[in-house]
Amino acid sequence: SRSINLAVIPGDGIGREVVAQGLKVLSAVLAQDVKLETKEYDFGARRYHATGETLTDADLEQLKQHDAILLGAIGDPSVPSGVLERGFLLKLRFAFDHHVNLRPSKLLPGVQTPLAGQPEIDFVVVREGTEGPYTGNGGTIRTGTPHAVATEVSLNTAFGIERVVRDAYARAQARPRKKLALVHKNNVLVHAGHLWTDIFNKVGEEFPEVTTEYMHVDAATIYLVTQPERFDVIVTDNLFGDIITDLAAAISGGIGVAASGNINPSGAFPSMFEPVHGSAPDIAGQGKADPSATVLSVALLLRHLGHEAEAARIEEAVSADLAERVGKPARTTDEIGDALAVRVAG
Amino acid sequence: SRSINLAVIPGDGIGREVVAQGLKVLSAVLAQDVKLETKEYDFGARRYHATGETLTDADLEQLKQHDAILLGAIGDPSVPSGVLERGFLLKLRFAFDHHVNLRPSKLLPGVQTPLAGQPEIDFVVVREGTEGPYTGNGGTIRTGTPHAVATEVSLNTAFGIERVVRDAYARAQARPRKKLALVHKNNVLVHAGHLWTDIFNKVGEEFPEVTTEYMHVDAATIYLVTQPERFDVIVTDNLFGDIITDLAAAISGGIGVAASGNINPSGAFPSMFEPVHGSAPDIAGQGKADPSATVLSVALLLRHLGHEAEAARIEEAVSADLAERVGKPARTTDEIGDALAVRVAG
Ligand SMILES: CC(C)[C@H](C(=O)O)[C@@H](O)C(=O)O
Ligand SMILES: CC(C)[C@H](C(=O)O)[C@@H](O)C(=O)O
Repeated sequence: SRSINLAVIPGDGIGREVVAQGLKVLSAVLAQDVKLETKEYDFGARRYHATGETLTDADLEQLKQHDAILLGAIGDPSVPSGVLERGFLLKLRFAFDHHVNLRPSKLLPGVQTPLAGQPEIDFVVVREGTEGPYTGNGGTIRTGTPHAVATEVSLNTAFGIERVVRDAYARAQARPRKKLALVHKNNVLVHAGHLWTDIFNKVGEEFPEVTTEYMHVDAATIYLVTQPERFDVIVTDNLFGDIITDLAAAISGGIGVAASGNINPSGAFPSMFEPVHGSAPDIAGQGKADPSATVLSVALLLRHLGHEAEAARIEEAVSADLAERVGKPARTTDEIGDALAVRVAG
Repeated sequence: SRSINLAVIPGDGIGREVVAQGLKVLSAVLAQDVKLETKEYDFGARRYHATGETLTDADLEQLKQHDAILLGAIGDPSVPSGVLERGFLLKLRFAFDHHVNLRPSKLLPGVQTPLAGQPEIDFVVVREGTEGPYTGNGGTIRTGTPHAVATEVSLNTAFGIERVVRDAYARAQARPRKKLALVHKNNVLVHAGHLWTDIFNKVGEEFPEVTTEYMHVDAATIYLVTQPERFDVIVTDNLFGDIITDLAAAISGGIGVAASGNINPSGAFPSMFEPVHGSAPDIAGQGKADPSATVLSVALLLRHLGHEAEAARIEEAVSADLAERVGKPARTTDEIGDALAVRVAG
């Protein structure tokens, strides 16, 4: 489409700094005839402290009008753990049915990995985003007493699993290696695990060219550090996806370069794109944050909206920028953003 | 005590091979005046296929008579996923209230790690063993239809959390660095997460010398590969513990050397010791399995029964053996067992 109406949520901590660079690069990459409109929203700790609100129905109505959402980071130590996570981040994922949580991991040339050797890492995790242990289901009785009991209920539906599994197969099918791994823990979480496994196998019949494997989540963490080149596409549950994508980010250059998309493939609601790193309050406001993860999230956003050429240009720019960093002094958030903007425009 | 009455469960795959070496080393290390009695049990795939049984009440009655249990591995591809895991391994952990699942990680000299550099790794994970998502609670409705729903219920009690948290504090207190990290996901799993966090903080008041930190499980996987030296003792939930201890094993030399104890500290029931690796059917019967993890599990067993000097001797022997392997041709399971037996006797 020839216009992009973007909701921008800088959020907390380093969020504002990195989002500014994301927008800079976005403006630079777009052809003259694509009209970019942005509207900023003030979600996060400041708004919560001022009003007690995290994300209201009216907010959701407004956000719904946009083509996509770019988020910096939400979270601040001044807010009790869980309030903004559940009240904003997860609320938005659930309200807009962001069931495909897309997290690519690619070790780019020149980027440091904690792993020995220079393994080839190029896979994408399709994490389910609206079910599992993330539904908030559960509760506590006898809080504060020696007899307290707390539950967490993981909810898994055939409907929810099938759509994300099918999405993952389609992604695997479109990649050269055409490999898909299901990661779960079906030897212990037998109810959810068997539902996932059965659906994974059944949908697989529609994709005869895709090679599949099943792996327990504990074993997956071993393979991620010993044989990361083994992976092409991984599909997994919400919580396992949360865990293995942080590990995946760590081995492929760190959360400074890890992008993510919270995608509603149907387009019924806008999708949201955000760096995997959090608000990093310890380095906020110092110009130290690496905006690459946000810029790469902008690439995912553009791809989602059909601007494939521009997405690829951003990815090449980030890749080239990272390769040239080796041995050079550190640059500020702004300097990296400027350099990327020059590259994508050039 | 001057006698050890041991239940031995070789189990499936490489279980028998590695357990044989564990027993060899155990006999060699024990002083003349300690009487070792062993009784072998036939649990695992063979018994399941022959009788349909995994672990009966009568079995539990028999096992209860022992001072401790040494297990090789349980699990075979011929048995549907979950049957032996839930029907034997987890059933035993629950029946004997093995709430302290102890998994030390130490990178020994000469041992290869997938991590770059040679980070110092020496920590122990205290994984809760009788609660959380492992209780088997949950179910499925409308199985096999597009409307299927499956649940998994994580059960967490103040009683269960407090005892394992206190055990972990005591272990941290006894170590030189006196550090304890709680790993959970309290920003999402708020019910269980807050219960864990509250109890962790409250019990901490009894251990003023122990330095504590809280870490989300996703962040923990990052730190395990980027700053493993940061960890001393970790306490965590059953499922998170399962995941991070496999990762911990991978970074500290692989599951070939990862030992574990399923401990009931009260002594009301015998504790069980087992290598973290599974039955590895692909290499079973070939003499290729490394018995070190089993031998190190025997050390944990001896320490649990009060034979500290013997436990230390085994650990030194394994450490020395591993250090001498560098650049040498691979030895058989039996040869490694023999070498270790000579060392501990010497
Ligand atoms: C902040 C938190 C709610 C979130 C999650 O657990 O999904 C984060 O860890 C992520 O991976 O996006
Ligand atoms: C085999 C399985 C039931 C077990 C677990 O999940 O606890 C294993 O992975 C372990 O870590 O001991």
